[in-house]
Amino acid sequence: MKNYVNASPEEKTQNYLFSERIKNIPKSFLREILKLTNEPSIISFAGGLPNSDYFPMKELHEAGAKVLQSANPDTFQYSITEGYLPLRKWVSGRYLQKGIDIPPEEILITNGSQQGIDLLGKIFINPGDYILMEKPSYLGAIQSFSAYQPNFITADLEEDGINLQQLENIIQKNKIKLFYSIPDFQNPTGISYSLEKRIAVASILKNSNAVLIEDNPYGELRFTGDYLPSFKKILPGQSIPLGSFSKVIAPGLRLEWIASDKEIMEKLVIAKQACDLHSNILTQKIIYQFLIDNDMESHLNKIKKKYGHQRDVMIEAIQKYFPKEVRFTKPEGGMFIWITLPKEYNTSEILNRAIQEQVAFVPGNTFYLDHSGANTMRLNFSNSSMEKIKDGIKKLGNILHHIY
Amino acid sequence: MKNYVNASPEEKTQNYLFSERIKNIPKSFLREILKLTNEPSIISFAGGLPNSDYFPMKELHEAGAKVLQSANPDTFQYSITEGYLPLRKWVSGRYLQKGIDIPPEEILITNGSQQGIDLLGKIFINPGDYILMEKPSYLGAIQSFSAYQPNFITADLEEDGINLQQLENIIQKNKIKLFYSIPDFQNPTGISYSLEKRIAVASILKNSNAVLIEDNPYGELRFTGDYLPSFKKILPGQSIPLGSFSKVIAPGLRLEWIASDKEIMEKLVIAKQACDLHSNILTQKIIYQFLIDNDMESHLNKIKKKYGHQRDVMIEAIQKYFPKEVRFTKPEGGMFIWITLPKEYNTSEILNRAIQEQVAFVPGNTFYLDHSGANTMRLNFSNSSMEKIKDGIKKLGNILHHIY
Repeated sequence: MKNYVNASPEEKTQNYLFSERIKNIPKSFLREILKLTNEPSIISFAGGLPNSDYFPMKELHEAGAKVLQSANPDTFQYSITEGYLPLRKWVSGRYLQKGIDIPPEEILITNGSQQGIDLLGKIFINPGDYILMEKPSYLGAIQSFSAYQPNFITADLEEDGINLQQLENIIQKNKIKLFYSIPDFQNPTGISYSLEKRIAVASILKNSNAVLIEDNPYGELRFTGDYLPSFKKILPGQSIPLGSFSKVIAPGLRLEWIASDKEIMEKLVIAKQACDLHSNILTQKIIYQFLIDNDMESHLNKIKKKYGHQRDVMIEAIQKYFPKEVRFTKPEGGMFIWITLPKEYNTSEILNRAIQEQVAFVPGNTFYLDHSGANTMRLNFSNSSMEKIKDGIKKLGNILHHIY
Repeated sequence: MKNYVNASPEEKTQNYLFSERIKNIPKSFLREILKLTNEPSIISFAGGLPNSDYFPMKELHEAGAKVLQSANPDTFQYSITEGYLPLRKWVSGRYLQKGIDIPPEEILITNGSQQGIDLLGKIFINPGDYILMEKPSYLGAIQSFSAYQPNFITADLEEDGINLQQLENIIQKNKIKLFYSIPDFQNPTGISYSLEKRIAVASILKNSNAVLIEDNPYGELRFTGDYLPSFKKILPGQSIPLGSFSKVIAPGLRLEWIASDKEIMEKLVIAKQACDLHSNILTQKIIYQFLIDNDMESHLNKIKKKYGHQRDVMIEAIQKYFPKEVRFTKPEGGMFIWITLPKEYNTSEILNRAIQEQVAFVPGNTFYLDHSGANTMRLNFSNSSMEKIKDGIKKLGNILHHIY
């Protein structure tokens, strides 16, 4: 092979000409911190992981075995972009139980919510278009959208949802294309929109062209309080619900869905085809088998009870160990508690101290597009045992009491 | 729920403000024709599907059962973006067998080759950037790249690879960022680059900033002739091989890889994270289990023998039944034969007649960015039985003899 035009090793380091777009995507601080917190000795409130102790391992094993045993070649062949029809029918039925009529034809199966967000950015956003985000908001969505070079505008998230005055001003002044919202047990704050606020938001949006993306990975994890209606019910034609099996069954299977009107669905299918043709058909069948062979309600009740208990234990520990001037959310579901410290605190500095004491969390400024929120932090309660929660919060409290 | 701001049904039809990008992605003619050809009565040479009769069903079942039986929660939890390390090591080892040194750290597992192409478009292409394509080329790549609004430039594909004079002119005149190539058993033509042409192409590219994407889903399916070296060997630092399990094991699992230098890998990981966090971990483990429990060579030999036979039968039938002035490729592997009819023939018209006779193929103009190639067609031989191949080619021959 001597006569090849073989570049010498020095030549091998290229200066590749990457796109502007990829330079725009913020690096994930979370990804870095998650590597660190994989150490079993660390008490981690940093990730957004469901608790793997509660995965329905036996049931998933049984569902998988059943699918493989009865597998026909279609289980391994190329499949349709929209997703496995029985699974889409199941999702449609689940919406119907909540009084929302979404036919299976309007449901697209995607690889996790992340792909849903990416596809929506792809079909809607031109460079410079406006996307409205809650402040603070989910980092993964900021990353996905950033690839499409939008202008982000933010409105404050209050205890009962987005600030209406700000929302109204923004909608009036800017041609908002997408409003990305997590109305139930938001990541990172744990906040849910009140019914009144949902109605008011719909009323403001309905005279605009803005489309509301209702990202709802945690909605099925309500521990207390009443179910609140989806924006799909309050603002039909302008809202796109995303749902996920990741937080309620298992995230490793990467199965999620987008529910959208026919007109949007058509574009999504073209976009998904260009992205990866279709989602894994074997695991779509396994999840479907799991869903028809098991009682989803009793599975949900089991994990909700456990997560609810973990939330209670964390709140109690915060009340006991954190300085009195600390404010925190009391989420009715989901996985996160949001901490607001007095202005002089800096949670990035606190993290360095905490890591030394084997405790991790995510500094809140990660979730702010303007990198404000230096005095905030996100605590995850789903992925730690009661003992670790008590222990970790006690250690954090100690640091907070003594750092300044 | 009466007090909701519930839009009336008429209001539900929105005029959504979609991105320019999504309007740019050509609709897949293949997708439409594949729907049609799902009818079992149709003899279809249209798709690009591996033959599901040769899927290693029993072995995949066994591998799946083993993975599920020994599954720990990690099998269902969030996982790393790069992919399952043992699988990446296997891929690395496979390259080493071919004399190519690619460490596992430079391999990213993706959801099918389609995602590989999409991610490369995402990290490299700004609107207006130049992508060089073979003429004709793979429609799926055209679709994926189109989302990034490039300028496509094409150079003719000859019997032994791309036209060198055109390549040289294009490289000199335009700042080509990506050159998308399928050097082995190309889709749609079945053509492979000769060794001489590979070396000449490398020599032309090495003084440019162009990066060569070596899409290689069919490379392992060589029936006759000698193995030809990857561009990664001839043009290191400027070529990015894509590989796939879709055509050699099963496409429904959507598992493929990109092999790239560290600098590119870093960007790809950010891009994939923004697209879907990571690929399905359960199926990565199943494929890996299959690979270590089975002899890949003997599996490959089995399907290569069958596909090779199907190719022979199709070529014989073409020689027997098609008009003498018809030209066709004699691929040494892969799945496709490319037919060039005399200028006055129009294969889109011929398809209409063929469908009436229950035979389908893809008109060649689908694979031309300028919609030329009206007298060409792509025939797939992997997904039909010997009888159907003989029957279908006979029917097509009959039409060709009588249509004009």
